[in-house]
Amino acid sequence: MRRFAPSVLAMPASVYSALADRLAAHPGETYPLHIGDTWMEPAVGCRMEDLRVADLPGMHRYAPVEGLATLRDALAARASARMGAPLARPNVLVTAGATAGLAAAVGAIVHPGDEVLILAPHWPLIAGIVRSFHGVPVPVPWIGVVHTPADAAAALAARCTERTVAVYLSTPNNPTGRVLPADQVAAIVAFARERDLWVLADEAYEDFRYGAEAQPYAYPLAPERTVAAFTFSKALGMAGNRIGYLVGPPELITHACKVGTHTAYSTSTAAQHAVLRALTAPAEAAVASSGGPGQAWIDHAVAQYAALGRDAAAVLGVPEPQGSTFLFLDVADQLDADGLPGFLERCVRAGLLVAPGPAFGPYPTHVRVCFTCAPPDRVRRGVRVLARLLGRSA
Amino acid sequence: MRRFAPSVLAMPASVYSALADRLAAHPGETYPLHIGDTWMEPAVGCRMEDLRVADLPGMHRYAPVEGLATLRDALAARASARMGAPLARPNVLVTAGATAGLAAAVGAIVHPGDEVLILAPHWPLIAGIVRSFHGVPVPVPWIGVVHTPADAAAALAARCTERTVAVYLSTPNNPTGRVLPADQVAAIVAFARERDLWVLADEAYEDFRYGAEAQPYAYPLAPERTVAAFTFSKALGMAGNRIGYLVGPPELITHACKVGTHTAYSTSTAAQHAVLRALTAPAEAAVASSGGPGQAWIDHAVAQYAALGRDAAAVLGVPEPQGSTFLFLDVADQLDADGLPGFLERCVRAGLLVAPGPAFGPYPTHVRVCFTCAPPDRVRRGVRVLARLLGRSA
Repeated sequence: MRRFAPSVLAMPASVYSALADRLAAHPGETYPLHIGDTWMEPAVGCRMEDLRVADLPGMHRYAPVEGLATLRDALAARASARMGAPLARPNVLVTAGATAGLAAAVGAIVHPGDEVLILAPHWPLIAGIVRSFHGVPVPVPWIGVVHTPADAAAALAARCTERTVAVYLSTPNNPTGRVLPADQVAAIVAFARERDLWVLADEAYEDFRYGAEAQPYAYPLAPERTVAAFTFSKALGMAGNRIGYLVGPPELITHACKVGTHTAYSTSTAAQHAVLRALTAPAEAAVASSGGPGQAWIDHAVAQYAALGRDAAAVLGVPEPQGSTFLFLDVADQLDADGLPGFLERCVRAGLLVAPGPAFGPYPTHVRVCFTCAPPDRVRRGVRVLARLLGRSA
Repeated sequence: MRRFAPSVLAMPASVYSALADRLAAHPGETYPLHIGDTWMEPAVGCRMEDLRVADLPGMHRYAPVEGLATLRDALAARASARMGAPLARPNVLVTAGATAGLAAAVGAIVHPGDEVLILAPHWPLIAGIVRSFHGVPVPVPWIGVVHTPADAAAALAARCTERTVAVYLSTPNNPTGRVLPADQVAAIVAFARERDLWVLADEAYEDFRYGAEAQPYAYPLAPERTVAAFTFSKALGMAGNRIGYLVGPPELITHACKVGTHTAYSTSTAAQHAVLRALTAPAEAAVASSGGPGQAWIDHAVAQYAALGRDAAAVLGVPEPQGSTFLFLDVADQLDADGLPGFLERCVRAGLLVAPGPAFGPYPTHVRVCFTCAPPDRVRRGVRVLARLLGRSA
């Protein structure tokens, strides 16, 4: 019978903002702070224009479905150095961004009706990824609710059922900018081990931490059950290239690769060469776990993002972000009878787009702001527009 | 419970050949004729090196999930001119190749347990795509079996159940190189209309027809129920760029876009600019339905592929291909007690990889050969190696 999958019918058509088209018609300067991106161009030497057929014959042909062997080795070395865990090529799957990576992992483990616990507020796409494969996303209110390892175990236990197969966490957190405390990550992993669940660790923003907090990697705590997702959309400013990677146990990587093969086939060959250039020093064939022009780009970006996040938080009167490129604000005190849609409409009339709270879980009065998706001065002006709409500016 | 999805566990890890790794260790020249690719580089002006940040600032950032508006318009004009059907931007979804496009379409329509009728022999990935979304692929033996419209209706009716939601066809056909007769396509569409099914028309090789047969487009016959998949992996030699597109009714496109957003997010921005350059003449902003350096590349490729296909068919003693880049051979008369695995092993020992028949449906004694995936002289030598193994050469 010709109809659509009920799970897909129930998904929203626009994840970040249904108002994006409206902004194009705005007469003055606009502030598209709703999507997570960067104004920076990738490092010189790592752009598409730097990848020449003369140097890389066949660079427009298919790459292996699991990724170029040299890149998988480089990523294994990189992640191993960061996590302090032994990793090799079979632990790594190159994917078309963290989205495709998490989709491949979810597709590999979710049987229809299976449930995935999702720490909330959460990255919007994870719920739709679980639904795309006919699983059930179960938000677990976390940030601002869970404060101790005991809270963590209790929050998970309250929503865990016989159908639960995995726990999803993101740290640094999209959308709140919080870094999960290490003892909470340990509690999540301990819970997952007790109930024999997978841990889906979304670490897309691992490089973007602005305080003293170390990245609380889950993988070394339970390498048999953890799959970690990374992306160069954030780390190298290559969102348009669609490249990231998964780290996990080889059996999971094998099955995730099957799903990836059948939803994307392979990851862009040029994008893989661009990352190889960024991660390895020029004229150096060997892998450098922290060398290459990419690390300098990251260091520069972190310094700029940290300042922007600090400034935006100060103007908006909220705590500084510990990481990521986002602030998550409760705007309840500015809502009238038209609720959040009315507030978003006022934003659009001022040339501003922000992402609505319900995309991130049960947050009907929140909005998310990205402070890196336009050049710094423009972000600063957009943040002031928002502060004015919130009655928080002088 | 920590385990894998049963549907994914049942999928093979390697679609085209589990022997690919072995070839790397082969001492002499090798002939990787198992995968569908091209030896040609993309047209000058349409390569990654031609896409400069100076001309395209922000070209490494996210593109809209449905594709660049300019590209969707160009593709609507292109497909409209070819099909003779009215098409506009809402009919087009830019996808990461035909694989991602068909995955998004299947994800949009398949509820767990739903069945998809698949004309066989078939492109290997379609079965795994249906399984990835927990549907059931149902092969319908076709090429060599169905000869008339009445045969077509009977073959489909024999396998159609209450759970059937779609019929998948590919023409020019991968793996056989046959072009479906127009009256068979009409019969398939009539059957789909009678049973209210979707039609999934895989036209990845629409440009690669070598005889007088017109491309038998299904979309104009039933635009309300047909989704057609195209790819620039073949048409422009950009397999590594991961870009193609779907054409279908706007509601299907909307729902397929949701699945695409949650499995790949967006299509490579650079890849989209590369296709725009290929399809539009230099220094011309308007869309040219058959202009740009891409069409010249295609014309050149078709001439070369046609000659290669003809030569390969003659050497192997099989009919010339009508289209695609493949020949599909029954090697039953060369199998011993070790069956097809033994034959594939003999191929590998001679430096040759071919794709095993069971990947394409119930074809335990067939192999598929791609005659475009290495430079012409190397393909010719590889074909002679195969002919010798088959006892078909002088």
